[in-house]
Amino acid sequence: MWSGVLPAVTSKFKEDGSLDHDEMTRCFGLQMDAGCDGLIVCGSLGEGPMMTLDERIAVMRTAKAVSGGKPVLMTVAAASTRESCEIAQRAATAGADGLMVVPSLVYQTNDAETVATLRAVAEAGDLPIMIYSNKIAYRVDVTPALMEELASDKRFVAIKESSDDIRRTTEIFNRLGDRYAVLTGVDNLAYEALAVGAVGWVAGLVCAFPKETVAIYRLMKEGRNAEALALYRWFRSLLDLDVSTYLVQNIKLAEALAIGSNERVRAPRQPLSGETRKRVESIIRAAMEVRPALPAFG
Amino acid sequence: MWSGVLPAVTSKFKEDGSLDHDEMTRCFGLQMDAGCDGLIVCGSLGEGPMMTLDERIAVMRTAKAVSGGKPVLMTVAAASTRESCEIAQRAATAGADGLMVVPSLVYQTNDAETVATLRAVAEAGDLPIMIYSNKIAYRVDVTPALMEELASDKRFVAIKESSDDIRRTTEIFNRLGDRYAVLTGVDNLAYEALAVGAVGWVAGLVCAFPKETVAIYRLMKEGRNAEALALYRWFRSLLDLDVSTYLVQNIKLAEALAIGSNERVRAPRQPLSGETRKRVESIIRAAMEVRPALPAFG
Amino acid sequence: MWSGVLPAVTSKFKEDGSLDHDEMTRCFGLQMDAGCDGLIVCGSLGEGPMMTLDERIAVMRTAKAVSGGKPVLMTVAAASTRESCEIAQRAATAGADGLMVVPSLVYQTNDAETVATLRAVAEAGDLPIMIYSNKIAYRVDVTPALMEELASDKRFVAIKESSDDIRRTTEIFNRLGDRYAVLTGVDNLAYEALAVGAVGWVAGLVCAFPKETVAIYRLMKEGRNAEALALYRWFRSLLDLDVSTYLVQNIKLAEALAIGSNERVRAPRQPLSGETRKRVESIIRAAMEVRPALPAFG
Amino acid sequence: MWSGVLPAVTSKFKEDGSLDHDEMTRCFGLQMDAGCDGLIVCGSLGEGPMMTLDERIAVMRTAKAVSGGKPVLMTVAAASTRESCEIAQRAATAGADGLMVVPSLVYQTNDAETVATLRAVAEAGDLPIMIYSNKIAYRVDVTPALMEELASDKRFVAIKESSDDIRRTTEIFNRLGDRYAVLTGVDNLAYEALAVGAVGWVAGLVCAFPKETVAIYRLMKEGRNAEALALYRWFRSLLDLDVSTYLVQNIKLAEALAIGSNERVRAPRQPLSGETRKRVESIIRAAMEVRPALPAFG
Repeated sequence: MWSGVLPAVTSKFKEDGSLDHDEMTRCFGLQMDAGCDGLIVCGSLGEGPMMTLDERIAVMRTAKAVSGGKPVLMTVAAASTRESCEIAQRAATAGADGLMVVPSLVYQTNDAETVATLRAVAEAGDLPIMIYSNKIAYRVDVTPALMEELASDKRFVAIKESSDDIRRTTEIFNRLGDRYAVLTGVDNLAYEALAVGAVGWVAGLVCAFPKETVAIYRLMKEGRNAEALALYRWFRSLLDLDVSTYLVQNIKLAEALAIGSNERVRAPRQPLSGETRKRVESIIRAAMEVRPALPAFG
Repeated sequence: MWSGVLPAVTSKFKEDGSLDHDEMTRCFGLQMDAGCDGLIVCGSLGEGPMMTLDERIAVMRTAKAVSGGKPVLMTVAAASTRESCEIAQRAATAGADGLMVVPSLVYQTNDAETVATLRAVAEAGDLPIMIYSNKIAYRVDVTPALMEELASDKRFVAIKESSDDIRRTTEIFNRLGDRYAVLTGVDNLAYEALAVGAVGWVAGLVCAFPKETVAIYRLMKEGRNAEALALYRWFRSLLDLDVSTYLVQNIKLAEALAIGSNERVRAPRQPLSGETRKRVESIIRAAMEVRPALPAFG
Repeated sequence: MWSGVLPAVTSKFKEDGSLDHDEMTRCFGLQMDAGCDGLIVCGSLGEGPMMTLDERIAVMRTAKAVSGGKPVLMTVAAASTRESCEIAQRAATAGADGLMVVPSLVYQTNDAETVATLRAVAEAGDLPIMIYSNKIAYRVDVTPALMEELASDKRFVAIKESSDDIRRTTEIFNRLGDRYAVLTGVDNLAYEALAVGAVGWVAGLVCAFPKETVAIYRLMKEGRNAEALALYRWFRSLLDLDVSTYLVQNIKLAEALAIGSNERVRAPRQPLSGETRKRVESIIRAAMEVRPALPAFG
Repeated sequence: MWSGVLPAVTSKFKEDGSLDHDEMTRCFGLQMDAGCDGLIVCGSLGEGPMMTLDERIAVMRTAKAVSGGKPVLMTVAAASTRESCEIAQRAATAGADGLMVVPSLVYQTNDAETVATLRAVAEAGDLPIMIYSNKIAYRVDVTPALMEELASDKRFVAIKESSDDIRRTTEIFNRLGDRYAVLTGVDNLAYEALAVGAVGWVAGLVCAFPKETVAIYRLMKEGRNAEALALYRWFRSLLDLDVSTYLVQNIKLAEALAIGSNERVRAPRQPLSGETRKRVESIIRAAMEVRPALPAFG
């Protein structure tokens, strides 16, 4: 159902802190122009938890207007199941094509609670769901065993695999075959994940470097692994910026430098400053200086 | 300003999931009867993140009606600074005596962001603040260095020390003397913390065992350490239930058995079940069977 | 210099606890028959730290007698630098082709100490060295920066990459190009490591399943990744046994079942027993029941 | 049997790297003069694993010559059980009063292996044993359950509690009453451990500051907790140097500054240098500048 490169897009703000839909239209459009296969809005990278529900729905509508029929997924990540269900319902009504669902943003659910929450969200939204498994960020592990338990409900169609352990991808295939579309959610494990069978990449640095991200995916799909690996090695210093507490600020700085966007974030986040900003900026500039020409692909 | 035993009270729900103010009035009253020195509402234990802001304010008002003039603190714990400030403002307007503030519930703020957030909440609420330092639960460490940076604002009056490392208490005294009231926030480190100079205990199992909690604190204050230690050793198997992902469910089960309350929680939480419930119940029953008579104290 | 499949062989003991050279000759021979590219003796898997230096040298000689001219590496892993140098010297004199070197088995060296120790061992043995980088087991990280510092000494020729983080392999290539032969030391990350450019596999389960291990390596070398991946997926439940505190016992049990060897280990290790043994045995038997026919390769 | 302050003494080396028995005689003597209750030789702090067995025995004899009849314990910490037993036997023959035993220095024993190893060492040495429980350094946790299993053998008389979690002390008392003498092995948790009932302190900074260490212990024993706590707060910046990968170098630098000894260590250790040395030296000097007068005690 879902495969290829799915950007987890950043949200854009005006100087007064309100949503900047024009800039989102421009930036989301760059993703689609580069050949991305859909858009995921209001995730961690999209600062969803810092927005009201009305704002999240507005971002989703902007994405839909740009996506040219390709799927737009709303992120469901809230403290309470009640709030998660509300997001799911509102997103469905407003035309989302699917949901990317975190069991709980605050409480660490046990296995039974994880399953119950995911099922409640599926009931509430009645949309196809990508299960977001990220035991590092959320301290809840949606394990292959839980994926198997959820498999009887056809609305659960995909896994965003962000365990930070590349072994997990093979474990999912060994347990569940191709029941789920497995997409990697960790930028600097993407080549490895695609090499062992992942069908897609929920990407972060793609926001600033959409063509390179798409090229790696497409080259691998065509069996041109050596070319993809060369590109990935170049890309790695940038991809590492996605695996950081400060991924939002890192990627917005990359967007500022690579696609002329801005670094505005919502509090408590602040833009990078001082030595950290210098270090990240120099990583980005160094990579851009040796930015490789992209090979042609199908 | 704040010292002694401050219960972080649980919230009570009716069968239909709505707030049960009668039961809260009863349970909060047991705390005050036992000699507690105030109440803290809508923390982790109070399931604050699972409630609307209106509900949190209602719980706070119920606590105020029971506290007999002793301080009632509202917990400020939200994803965005905007929402944190809104809670602070509403709580102040509604009559809270102080705030217990977590820098951010979701994002891991860096030092500058931590300070900025705490200052923004102080501005918004203009109430005395207990800084909640809990690097384990929130992955943000409000260090003694940050406490020092915040010290120039007199609204920051207390620290809830929940680093899970008893060494930290002495580090705060060594750096800041008695600038802050240091209260321990970890039930099964409470004796140790009071032994090295903490002036209070933000307590959890107190919800089910208020008299024993108060007795340990008062005995130590009177220099009767051996008696306090004997009581603490008895209490330890119960206090351990506070240091758990399932502390809310654990403590509500203890309340059900010890003070006749109920175990209702809000999703995604579910009451304990199966082997886990049996194990916790047997710990509670075993402790209650050998519940010691309390010595008289001043 | 070194590439392909290099088994980290187990040592074999008689019932009285002494070395069983006949059984080692037989088992090491199975490795060479299957097409392995050398042998590494007296590592963790070889229980080197449980043997006297004389015993280690004897095991090395037995390996040399079997290896048919392919390289035999002695593991250098001791508490003190003095002892490490003694092992290196004795191994060189006795005919070892190279050394696999752990900076320190007990103390966690800082960067300067790590470099100094590795250089001291190189001086003492004057043999080609594979640097064993395993921050999990030894809590010392031989980082790419340290590899760069050591690069001026031509005796450091290879890296056994066992950081447990597949990202590290690409980091080494990005920093050092092909200065070092990079071999993966983690069985259940081997496909991924070879996919991103590792030239060899210091293998564990190879002791029990030499042909399958060699087949995966050779197929990938021939660009037949899909066939290799299918084999690797089958192999994964076994390869996981290498990433365990009990890897020696796990692999010896696999050897007992797959190549008719025995499970004897030296104290404090004991053979697996009880539920653990049942679980591991059932993993091994389950895999052997669906053992795939191997495709022909060059 | 054992209680009070037991220094884990450092070993002293001449410029040529050989043992400096004269300096050990002097330094061990300072410990006894200050009122320490015994000596423990060849532990981590004593660089035991960097010495030959003959050297360890020689250090033990030097300690015996100085201890004036107070107990001298030999540390048993080796990779193999065979080697552990050899140390125990040799130490017993040479006149050690007891053994401090680590289950295994390299391999992480499971519960059955931990018990078997400790029993084997008890058989071999037939001396009273202090079980060294340090799950941080050795990744083997000798839990209260295992202590209970070992309790039937009267040779196991004491616990060196170094779990880094102060809760453990109370857990031992709650499970085993006073079956074992519980001594804390973590300098900067010592006040807390003694406050909850530990009967002794296996100390590190005592090497450089014997009188202050003894004063804290004795004052607490006399119920003069406030005086002890004031001293402990002063001492904390120094005691923190014991909880470090570089504890040997830290404490030897403290000995150089406070008792005129030297910083020589055995490779792979090197003395502190650069910024680290400056930082540690300034901590030591700052504490010495405000070194308090010690109160008189019994």
